[in-house]
Amino acid sequence: MVTSPATAPVAVIDVGGTDTKTGVMLPDGTLTGIGAAPTPHGTDVVGNVLDLAAAHVAQARRAHPDLAAVGLVVPGIVDDEAGRAVLASNMRWQDVPFAALLSERTGLPAALGHDVASAGLAEVEHSAADLPRGRATDTAVIVIGTGIAAALFTEGRPLRGGGYAGELGHVPVAPEGPQCACGGRGCLETLASAGAIARRYTAQSGQQVTGAAQVLQAAQAGDEDAAAIWHEATEALARGITVLAAVLAPQVVILGGGLSGAGAALTDPVGRHLDQMLTVQRRPQIRLGRLGTHAGLHGAGILARQRVQEGIR
Amino acid sequence: MVTSPATAPVAVIDVGGTDTKTGVMLPDGTLTGIGAAPTPHGTDVVGNVLDLAAAHVAQARRAHPDLAAVGLVVPGIVDDEAGRAVLASNMRWQDVPFAALLSERTGLPAALGHDVASAGLAEVEHSAADLPRGRATDTAVIVIGTGIAAALFTEGRPLRGGGYAGELGHVPVAPEGPQCACGGRGCLETLASAGAIARRYTAQSGQQVTGAAQVLQAAQAGDEDAAAIWHEATEALARGITVLAAVLAPQVVILGGGLSGAGAALTDPVGRHLDQMLTVQRRPQIRLGRLGTHAGLHGAGILARQRVQEGIR
Repeated sequence: MVTSPATAPVAVIDVGGTDTKTGVMLPDGTLTGIGAAPTPHGTDVVGNVLDLAAAHVAQARRAHPDLAAVGLVVPGIVDDEAGRAVLASNMRWQDVPFAALLSERTGLPAALGHDVASAGLAEVEHSAADLPRGRATDTAVIVIGTGIAAALFTEGRPLRGGGYAGELGHVPVAPEGPQCACGGRGCLETLASAGAIARRYTAQSGQQVTGAAQVLQAAQAGDEDAAAIWHEATEALARGITVLAAVLAPQVVILGGGLSGAGAALTDPVGRHLDQMLTVQRRPQIRLGRLGTHAGLHGAGILARQRVQEGIR
Repeated sequence: MVTSPATAPVAVIDVGGTDTKTGVMLPDGTLTGIGAAPTPHGTDVVGNVLDLAAAHVAQARRAHPDLAAVGLVVPGIVDDEAGRAVLASNMRWQDVPFAALLSERTGLPAALGHDVASAGLAEVEHSAADLPRGRATDTAVIVIGTGIAAALFTEGRPLRGGGYAGELGHVPVAPEGPQCACGGRGCLETLASAGAIARRYTAQSGQQVTGAAQVLQAAQAGDEDAAAIWHEATEALARGITVLAAVLAPQVVILGGGLSGAGAALTDPVGRHLDQMLTVQRRPQIRLGRLGTHAGLHGAGILARQRVQEGIR
């Protein structure tokens, strides 16, 4: 059976620092069969990631024999066009030609992308109808999870800085703030990442929590420690957005990643802080991402489809 | 006489908040006949600026009868392509079609540009031979004078953010720092602009100075107040560059404007502070601009030449 590539499903994989998510993107753009497994670490990370990816593709193929391609997104510095993972210190790999290796293992066209850049691309695609000038907008997608990073778009084009752009999590927003794992102090992600919110609440209150969502619930139930930490997080986020507004002047800032599940409890205070902080800068519209923690998988799907399109040109 | 436009001189005008500079750019790219006059203010700023520009063009034409075009650069929000000055609060104008008006007054093709963006373009053109990938580099040109603003380039393309990008002077770098005219606190330009350096030294020491150069001289002669203020300025500048490195990751940062006259006394301490501040960010090379306070005039010349090229297509 010959299936037109544009109407065939693709396998998608998002390698995170902790978990690796997998799924299949159907021709209509929806995700199905989403799963997660601990990200392999240890001596042969690359081999183990390839094993995991190949096993997922084999399984996906049983349900979708017309699987047309595979898309993989990873953290670190990524050269999309060459299909190479240049560097990821937390994954301990360097200059890995993932696209070629994965294509070899699966017999399918394979695309490689950066996790945050791809997640941002997916959020922009899914919000395009609502953006001031469609995809041509100056937009920043801030992905807030364990850490914080941004995917930046200027007139609709991704702004990559050789893979180093968008490290918004390491913009200093509080000179006397917490020590950051990067070696800096008061980096945005030490105050406003989902991980930091949970960690700081436990340190402050002595209470264990499963994540930032539980801190927000506590704050809404009147817990003063939780309220203070949520307040500091949204204020720090507004400081980060103020920096973006001064430097890049995005028309739209999309808040994505796990923390976007907080909804208006996130966007409302961030918007109020912004109104106080912004002076000469253009005020961006603050939007919620629509894809949550699955944005990376959606991005991997977009890249895999593009790879198929390129192949048939 | 018919002169090929690419080899003809162009008149150039740089309207600043205080002074307006004028000159002629010769076919080999050098500036000649540079003059300065107080920028007209008052009830008919636009009319007065046009009078000044027309008088300059008339005078320049006497020396250069083959004058091919005129380039004008102004502060504020500028729509280059439409040739319109959209907004400049300190000039009190709004939506002025300067290119058309100037062309009408002079009978020459006229180009309009933003002062800092054009100055940055000129610095990049003049540094292109030394940039890692020529003009295609990710570059930031920080123009440090009365205030601070940056011209940003991503893969050689100007990043404008609808005219709002590059307001690096209003990135907060010191939460408890001086009040800024913009309404913010601790903005970069309250510590590191040439104007702020002179102002802060006078406030600290009670001594009047003609400008930042004199503060640097005092610091080099052992004046502790001057040394402290110069130190704070270079440290604040490094903080601003750290923000740029995290967000845009420029390969090269060119320090331009009047303060670039300080040479190594500026770049050396900024580089040392950067080495301490940068962690995960790509470290930009720090370069001195080559055009000083004339970068805006050079930029006006580039735009005027482009206008001529477009006209003969």
